[in-house]
Amino acid sequence: MSFEKREGGEVALPPFDPADSDGPRMTFIGRIRSRWQPGGDAPRNIGSAREAGAAGTVELEPGYAQGLQGLEVGRHVIVMYWMDRARRDLIVQSPRHTASGRGVFSLRSPVRPNPIAMSTVKITSLDMETGVIGIDAIDCFDGTPPVVDIKPWIETIDMPQG
Amino acid sequence: MSFEKREGGEVALPPFDPADSDGPRMTFIGRIRSRWQPGGDAPRNIGSAREAGAAGTVELEPGYAQGLQGLEVGRHVIVMYWMDRARRDLIVQSPRHTASGRGVFSLRSPVRPNPIAMSTVKITSLDMETGVIGIDAIDCFDGTPPVVDIKPWIETIDMPQG
Repeated sequence: MSFEKREGGEVALPPFDPADSDGPRMTFIGRIRSRWQPGGDAPRNIGSAREAGAAGTVELEPGYAQGLQGLEVGRHVIVMYWMDRARRDLIVQSPRHTASGRGVFSLRSPVRPNPIAMSTVKITSLDMETGVIGIDAIDCFDGTPPVVDIKPWIETIDMPQG
Repeated sequence: MSFEKREGGEVALPPFDPADSDGPRMTFIGRIRSRWQPGGDAPRNIGSAREAGAAGTVELEPGYAQGLQGLEVGRHVIVMYWMDRARRDLIVQSPRHTASGRGVFSLRSPVRPNPIAMSTVKITSLDMETGVIGIDAIDCFDGTPPVVDIKPWIETIDMPQG
């Protein structure tokens, strides 16, 4: 297999770009609303978003509101969203905080074969009619990116054990 | 919006099946190997898999091994996989352990608009040449399902706060 060597120790994966895959298609189930605008003072990550009191909402597409049955305010959920502007073929990357190249699977970079990001957040409000969920913190820009799943956080599945 | 009412309080989402979405395509980056065979005594979930000492491996597709740079044995990662046999249009479901219908976003059911499942596991071995990762526990059948991402588990992102 041949690789494209890039600046700063990055490695791309030609001739295959995962964006050209013939795999199954994602469907978008909603949008994240936040107070962060591109070019503004968006937080670097969910940790700093939480410190800044950066609450947000998830607005589900029509039809999905019934899927919220069984959730409650105060419950933690994992919100998954699709980073639709990210390239997908950089297997080794050079993030600013590292001196050398790092593998994509050791990073939370949005640049990855399937650009899914996720955060564990707390539900602060829940409208079962309109499908709008308040969440305690979010670090992404208002209106972007599309939401692809919401899962209840479950300790035995999601917490490191042992 | 009209819904298809089903047995046991289930609700499907016609006329749209998320499987027919025109969204971006997933790419499969590897396979999970486990000792569980269909029809056998597979564990009900990752918790019971761990109790049963059910270690497994993730075998990456060619080209992705370099993406493991920066990971180490003992580190916890989130393995994400695509439940390719699951239907995608059941918004309210009736799992065996509940008396009435439950919304898909309150369940970890594989049946969901985007059938991505995930578990937080510990790396027990790591072969950077072949792209094979040993993990401490897994609850899915050998050879299925396709892996779509591996992410480092990070406390400030993945752990409930507050």
